[in-house]
Amino acid sequence: MITEIDINSDLGEGYGNYKAGNDEEVMKYVTTANIACGFHAGDPCIMRKTVELAKRNGVVIGAHPGFPDLMGFGRRKMEISEDDAWCYTIYQVGALKAFVETAGLELHHVKPHGALYWVLTEDEKLSKVICEAIIKIDPDLPVYWPSPLTEAFPRIATEMGLKAVGELNADTGYTPDGIVAPFREKHAIDLEGVRKRIRQFITEGTVTAINGEVIKKEAQSICTHGDTPNAVDVLKAIRDELKKANISITPARKPSSQAKPKSTG
Amino acid sequence: MITEIDINSDLGEGYGNYKAGNDEEVMKYVTTANIACGFHAGDPCIMRKTVELAKRNGVVIGAHPGFPDLMGFGRRKMEISEDDAWCYTIYQVGALKAFVETAGLELHHVKPHGALYWVLTEDEKLSKVICEAIIKIDPDLPVYWPSPLTEAFPRIATEMGLKAVGELNADTGYTPDGIVAPFREKHAIDLEGVRKRIRQFITEGTVTAINGEVIKKEAQSICTHGDTPNAVDVLKAIRDELKKANISITPARKPSSQAKPKSTG
Amino acid sequence: MITEIDINSDLGEGYGNYKAGNDEEVMKYVTTANIACGFHAGDPCIMRKTVELAKRNGVVIGAHPGFPDLMGFGRRKMEISEDDAWCYTIYQVGALKAFVETAGLELHHVKPHGALYWVLTEDEKLSKVICEAIIKIDPDLPVYWPSPLTEAFPRIATEMGLKAVGELNADTGYTPDGIVAPFREKHAIDLEGVRKRIRQFITEGTVTAINGEVIKKEAQSICTHGDTPNAVDVLKAIRDELKKANISITPARKPSSQAKPKSTG
Amino acid sequence: MITEIDINSDLGEGYGNYKAGNDEEVMKYVTTANIACGFHAGDPCIMRKTVELAKRNGVVIGAHPGFPDLMGFGRRKMEISEDDAWCYTIYQVGALKAFVETAGLELHHVKPHGALYWVLTEDEKLSKVICEAIIKIDPDLPVYWPSPLTEAFPRIATEMGLKAVGELNADTGYTPDGIVAPFREKHAIDLEGVRKRIRQFITEGTVTAINGEVIKKEAQSICTHGDTPNAVDVLKAIRDELKKANISITPARKPSSQAKPKSTG
Repeated sequence: MITEIDINSDLGEGYGNYKAGNDEEVMKYVTTANIACGFHAGDPCIMRKTVELAKRNGVVIGAHPGFPDLMGFGRRKMEISEDDAWCYTIYQVGALKAFVETAGLELHHVKPHGALYWVLTEDEKLSKVICEAIIKIDPDLPVYWPSPLTEAFPRIATEMGLKAVGELNADTGYTPDGIVAPFREKHAIDLEGVRKRIRQFITEGTVTAINGEVIKKEAQSICTHGDTPNAVDVLKAIRDELKKANISITPARKPSSQAKPKSTG
Repeated sequence: MITEIDINSDLGEGYGNYKAGNDEEVMKYVTTANIACGFHAGDPCIMRKTVELAKRNGVVIGAHPGFPDLMGFGRRKMEISEDDAWCYTIYQVGALKAFVETAGLELHHVKPHGALYWVLTEDEKLSKVICEAIIKIDPDLPVYWPSPLTEAFPRIATEMGLKAVGELNADTGYTPDGIVAPFREKHAIDLEGVRKRIRQFITEGTVTAINGEVIKKEAQSICTHGDTPNAVDVLKAIRDELKKANISITPARKPSSQAKPKSTG
Repeated sequence: MITEIDINSDLGEGYGNYKAGNDEEVMKYVTTANIACGFHAGDPCIMRKTVELAKRNGVVIGAHPGFPDLMGFGRRKMEISEDDAWCYTIYQVGALKAFVETAGLELHHVKPHGALYWVLTEDEKLSKVICEAIIKIDPDLPVYWPSPLTEAFPRIATEMGLKAVGELNADTGYTPDGIVAPFREKHAIDLEGVRKRIRQFITEGTVTAINGEVIKKEAQSICTHGDTPNAVDVLKAIRDELKKANISITPARKPSSQAKPKSTG
Repeated sequence: MITEIDINSDLGEGYGNYKAGNDEEVMKYVTTANIACGFHAGDPCIMRKTVELAKRNGVVIGAHPGFPDLMGFGRRKMEISEDDAWCYTIYQVGALKAFVETAGLELHHVKPHGALYWVLTEDEKLSKVICEAIIKIDPDLPVYWPSPLTEAFPRIATEMGLKAVGELNADTGYTPDGIVAPFREKHAIDLEGVRKRIRQFITEGTVTAINGEVIKKEAQSICTHGDTPNAVDVLKAIRDELKKANISITPARKPSSQAKPKSTG
C-alpha cells in the first residue's frame, strides 16, 4: 500500500538563449528535479538558475546526464566506450554537484537522459561503469528508472548497492513490456487519462500499455515532462488524485536518510 | 631567502583525438599540474587520464578554467557577463574537482587560462565573481598568477581571503611592467637563458624584461609550458639550478596545510 | 520618394530541439529572410527547413553569419583575427548558399549578426576581410545594415563595390546617433508606435531616437525581429501602413537584377 | 592493366590550436586530398589553409564529411535520421566547396569519414539520401570508397549515376571480406609491406587479408593516412613502386573530365 510518492520532472533543459519548458511553473508542483548537465542540454548559467529555482521551491535535485550531443538533444544513440561512459558521468554529475553544493544543498539522485537511457536498458558494460562512477561520487545516490527494474541499468545498480527508484510516467505510453513508448509530436496530454492512470497505479499497482494490456508497475516516483503544452495541468491533476488518495508527496528517500530521516520536499 | 619552490605546468590540454604536449614526460618534473576543464581544452577522458597521471607522479592538481572557446583554445577575449563568469567557474572547477576527488585526491588550486587571465588582469567585476565562485567551492584554494600580484585578480583574491601564489614564467618573456609577453611561434627555449633566469630570481628576486630592464618578481611557483618542443629539457635545467641552490621543490602550500603540513610533492 | 521597400527578419534561429520565434507565421509577411548559418544559431536541418519555408512563401534568402558562440547566441564580442573573420564568413555563407542552391534558389544578401555586427560598426580591418570574403563568393551580394551607412562595415563595403542596403528597425529603439539600442527583455511591441514610425519614415525619411531627437534614416528594408511575442502583429501593422501609402513590398534589388529585373518577392 | 592511379590522403584534420599529421609534407606526395569539413575535425581556418596548400601542390580536393562529433573524431556511430544525413552532407560539402571555389578551384569528390563510412557500408536509406545530397550539389562528383564496391553506399551511388572510385588502403589491414580492419595504435608502417602490397595490387589486382587470404581488389586510388609516424616514407615507397611499374600518378577522373580531359594533378 503506497503512502508516499515522489513527483519528478526533467528541468533546466534550455541552452543559452533557448528555453525549454516552463520551469518556473513546473517547479511549483514537483518534489524532485532532474537537471541537465550541459551535454545534451543545459549550460552553466541555466544550471545555476535551475538549482536556485529548485531551492526556492524546496525541490531536491538529481543529475540528468546524457550523450554529448546538443544538436540531437541527447536522443540519438552514440557508440561510446566504457571509459567515455565513466568519464562523462563523473564530469556531468560532478559539475552539477558543484552547483548544488555551492547552493548549500545536497545532490539527491542520478537519472540517465534520452538515448543514454535507451542504451542502458540493455548494455551491461556501460551500466556497470556508470554505476561505478556514481558510487565513486556518492554511493548513497539513488538512480531513477522509468521502465522495468529488471533492465540492465537498474538491475546492475541494485547488485552494486545503489538504490533504484522506479518511475511511473504520467504522460507517455508504455509498451506491453513496460517500456516507455518513443516520443512523438509534442501534444497536450489528456488530463482524464492522466487521472485514470494515477488512480489505477495507486489502487492496483498496474499501468495499461498502448495495446490495452495491463502490466505490473513498480514505482516510487511519478515522472512528467515539462515540455508538453499543458505540463502544469498534468501536474495539478496528478497532485489532485494523490491528495484524494491521501498519499503524501515527497522525494524518494536516499538510503542514508532512511537511517536519519529528514524532510527534504 | 627562498628555501622551497613549486614547479607548475599547464597539462591535459588535448581534446578527443588531439594531443597537446608530452604530458607523460612533463609530469615527471613538475610538482603541480594545472588541468584544463573542457571549455578551451580538455575533455572528460583526458581529464581522468591526466588526473591519474598526476596521481602516479605525486603531482598535486589545480583547475585551469578558461573561456568556452575550443576553436580559439581560450586565447580570444570574450565579453562574458558576471553571471557567466561565476557559472563557468563553478562548472569547470566542479567538474575537475569530481575527477580529483574520485581519484582520492584533493583539489589544490585554481589558475585562470589564456584570455580569461588577460581579462582578469584588469577587470575587477569579473575578478570578484570568480573569486566568489572559488570561495564557494573551497576558500582554501590558492589562485596562481603569472604577472604582478597587484593586478585586479590576485589583489581582489587576497582582499577576499584567498591566497595568491605568484609565478615565475621560466620560458616566456616579461614586459617592463612584469606582464607576460604574448606568445608567438612555438619554438625551442634557450636553456642557458632559463638557467640564468632561475639563478637571478633565486639570488636577487628579479627578472630581466624583454627590453633589458630588471624588475622585482614575487613568486612561489615556477611555470613552464608543456607545448614547447624542448619542454622536458627546460624542466631539467630548472630542477638542476634549484638543486644547486639547495631549494626544495614542493607544491605551494594551501592555507590549511600551513597548520597541518603534509608532503604532497 | 519611396515607391518600394523590403521587409526582412532574422529566421532559422533555433538549434536542434530548440525553437526560436514563429518562423512559419513570420515568413508569410516578409520578403527577405536572414537565415542563421550554424555558428550562433541554426543547424543543418533547421537551415534546410527554413530555406524550404522561404521558398514556399516566395521569400528571398540572405546569410546571417555570426560568432562561433552558440552558448551566447552570438551576442558576445570575441576578439577574432582577420583570418578568422574571412574564414568564418566563407564557411557560414558557403554552407547556407549550398542549401539555397540545392533548393533551386539564388543567395540574395549577407547580414552580420549580433556582436559581429557590433564589432563591424567600428572595426575597419575585420570589415575589409569580411567584404573580401563576400566578394569572393559573389560580388553581387548586397550587405544589410541597421545603423548609419557611414559606419565601418557598410562604408568599406560600398568602397569595395558591394551594395549596402540600409535598414529601418521597426521594433527596436535608436540612439541619437542612429545606432540600434541594445536589446532588453523580450516584450510585446507597441503597435501604434510601429505604425507611427513607419509613417514618419515614409513621409519624412526620419526616425525618432529614444531621447526624442529626430534623425535622418536611409533605408531600403524594414527589419523586424521574429522573437518578439507579437511579431506577426507588428508585421501586419507594417504592411498595412505600407499599403495605405501605396508602397510596394519587394526584396532589395541585387545589383545584377537592376540590369535584368526579375520578380523575386 | 592499370596505367594510372590516384593517391589520396585525409588532410586538414586538425582543429583550432591542434595539429593532426604533417599536412605540409604529405601534400607533396598525394594527388588528391580529402579535407575535413568542421564536424569531426577541421575548422574554417584549417580548411582555408589546407585548400591553399593543396592548390600550391597541384592536389585536387574532395570533401570528407563526418558525424558531428569532434570529441570522438567522428569515429563513433551515431543514430542519425535521413534528414540529418542529407542536411549534414549539404552543410559540410557546401562549406568546403565555398573554400575550394573561392580559391579558384573545383571540388573533385566526396569521401565519407570514419563511423559515417562504417554506417554506410550497410545502411541503404542513409546511403541513398547522402547520394541525393551529393547529386544536388554536383552529379559529377565521384565518391571514394575503401572497401568492396558492392557495399551499400558505392552500390547505391552507382545506381544513382555517381561514379564510385575504389581505394586500396596502403597502410591498414583488410579482413577476408575486403573490409578495412579497425584502427589500432598509431604505429610506424612497415615499408617493405607497403611496397609488396602495391606490387601485388598492380600485377594481380589483389590484396592479402589479415588472415592470409588473397582477395580481389578494385581500386583507382591508393589511400594513405597522414597521422602514421612515417606517413611520408610510406608515400615515397608507394610512388617508387608505381614509378618502377610505369604507372602515372594522377587524380581519379571526374565523369565530365572524361569528355573534356584536363590535367589536374
